[in-house]
Amino acid sequence: MQVHIPLKKTVDNSYDITIDTLPKRHFDTKVAIITNPKVAGLHLAYLLERISAKELYIITVPDGEEYKNQASVDLIMESLFNHRFNRKSLLIAFGGGVIGDMTGFVSSIYQRGIDFIQIPTTLLSQVDASVGGKTGINNKYGKNLIGAFHQPQEVLIDAHFLTTLPKREFGAGVAEVVKMAVTFNKEFFEFLERADLSDTEVLAKAIEYAVQTKADVVAKDEKEHGLRAALNYGHTFGHVIENETNYKQFLHGEAVAIGMVMANRLAVRLGLMSQEEAQRIENLLKKYDLPTSYEIKDIEAFYETFYLDKKSSDTKITFILPKGLGDVVLLDTVEKEDVIAVLEEFGA
Amino acid sequence: MQVHIPLKKTVDNSYDITIDTLPKRHFDTKVAIITNPKVAGLHLAYLLERISAKELYIITVPDGEEYKNQASVDLIMESLFNHRFNRKSLLIAFGGGVIGDMTGFVSSIYQRGIDFIQIPTTLLSQVDASVGGKTGINNKYGKNLIGAFHQPQEVLIDAHFLTTLPKREFGAGVAEVVKMAVTFNKEFFEFLERADLSDTEVLAKAIEYAVQTKADVVAKDEKEHGLRAALNYGHTFGHVIENETNYKQFLHGEAVAIGMVMANRLAVRLGLMSQEEAQRIENLLKKYDLPTSYEIKDIEAFYETFYLDKKSSDTKITFILPKGLGDVVLLDTVEKEDVIAVLEEFGA
Repeated sequence: MQVHIPLKKTVDNSYDITIDTLPKRHFDTKVAIITNPKVAGLHLAYLLERISAKELYIITVPDGEEYKNQASVDLIMESLFNHRFNRKSLLIAFGGGVIGDMTGFVSSIYQRGIDFIQIPTTLLSQVDASVGGKTGINNKYGKNLIGAFHQPQEVLIDAHFLTTLPKREFGAGVAEVVKMAVTFNKEFFEFLERADLSDTEVLAKAIEYAVQTKADVVAKDEKEHGLRAALNYGHTFGHVIENETNYKQFLHGEAVAIGMVMANRLAVRLGLMSQEEAQRIENLLKKYDLPTSYEIKDIEAFYETFYLDKKSSDTKITFILPKGLGDVVLLDTVEKEDVIAVLEEFGA
Repeated sequence: MQVHIPLKKTVDNSYDITIDTLPKRHFDTKVAIITNPKVAGLHLAYLLERISAKELYIITVPDGEEYKNQASVDLIMESLFNHRFNRKSLLIAFGGGVIGDMTGFVSSIYQRGIDFIQIPTTLLSQVDASVGGKTGINNKYGKNLIGAFHQPQEVLIDAHFLTTLPKREFGAGVAEVVKMAVTFNKEFFEFLERADLSDTEVLAKAIEYAVQTKADVVAKDEKEHGLRAALNYGHTFGHVIENETNYKQFLHGEAVAIGMVMANRLAVRLGLMSQEEAQRIENLLKKYDLPTSYEIKDIEAFYETFYLDKKSSDTKITFILPKGLGDVVLLDTVEKEDVIAVLEEFGA
């Protein structure tokens, strides 16, 4: 005997990202702002001038990637239960990627789902984590190994928060912005070459470009499973650099910047990109004081780490290589000797 | 500036429930069977004669509702990470509702989602937890407060597992079966009146009826938000009884049986059901040695507990009352005096 459970339905997880000065908003429900002490100290006053609620709670968790874990999730949920939050309540993620990923995860499992709004406060989280719905936490086995796909109700991006961002962190965000321009949008790339991102309006325009680009990719990816992988341009090399330096020497975006330079060299060698185009990308990265060189001490070890990094059991490495400016190819047929030749350019 | 993220799509979470002798099946992937020591001792040999895998792991968690918590989830995930399970691996929930709910929850958050199959081993989990996709764990604030809606890939129901079920636990499952028949299907109810559930084939037919009934309700509920609530027939009164007896004196199904008798009295009083129909339900419950009476010591306190039990802030109590046999109404306009009059029939 067989009973079929028909659960085919249309799900609408669409949402809007508004890039503008934070609007005034009152929520007629319980609201918890999830943040960390540093962001709260810098920007909570600004937020509270604009956001109000029937009942408002502020929950802080310690700042840093090392606190993106189950203990912080427990701490947040403890507070929500304690204040009798229910499914009609609302969470607001107010911080960078760590706060966004954790709040999103909590909102996916608290009473089987509660709404959340993202107000990202770093450039990286504004252009990257605000699109895609990946939520999660780390554990001792690795990053983002526990989580869910869960979309926010909306994202509010205000470039005002970036004014207090340390220069290095701002640059790390720019690296991801450059990544999206190089792989998907030449017009965007040329805009960045001309842009003065210290001008808030120009910066907002760059954020819009980046968000729109990622949105297009994520929307298309439902059919073309490869496309979203293109967002990892610079990451294949970057991850090895992060690994070799124990995630201490470089911010993620900085390692990605070097990774893009390495990928570009490989692209030039394989005839996908001109030397001049590679140079333009490097110049743009240097404009934001991003590192573009790295001394590889053991070339064979560096190469082997590509394989260590793979989660899946399949043994081919897919290189994500720019094809000129504004286009990208995924190649899993690159010969080892070509990769080694590029790595040797970075050798001691 | 506003960017719209369009995420409207058709999601197919359909799956099949097979009610039959467990089929032989080989999975060409890593498989973890999540179970408890008791079920494993009784039935793992039977399972392993039929289920094999490329790599097979058995993970046991302590038996009982009190272990349906974060600690057990951590224990399961620790083992999965330790054995390098990835998104292509498979979990099999092998046990009752606790095992099913926890395994489902783990499968919803492990690496943002991994497949799972349910092989429920109690009557209650076969007819109830196998349909609906509710997964979750308890914490000190209450039951199922952390979780997700997450559907299994399939459910395999084999009445063989019920042969070792203690009589009381079997009866508790029957109570939920009766509940579905009374509220939705008169033909099913009359089948149960005639049925000898000690005959495995007849029992399988009853399970099929119950699963099909719940499947119809869950499928319809996407539009009619009230309908699924009808599955709580007997639960409004039953929860108060469980609460008053600290969840110790009665199994959940037993409290629901008494709750149904109470709801029926109210239905008779309000002219929704004949005295004779109420008696037929009571007789059916008695056939499986289910309790049908309970001495209320403090009628006012019993009534007040209806309100304590409400998760939401709205103050109306919705009574789920049978309308004859095979139909149900939800009423939030029942006068207190009618409820009190019924409770007085159960008074000391």
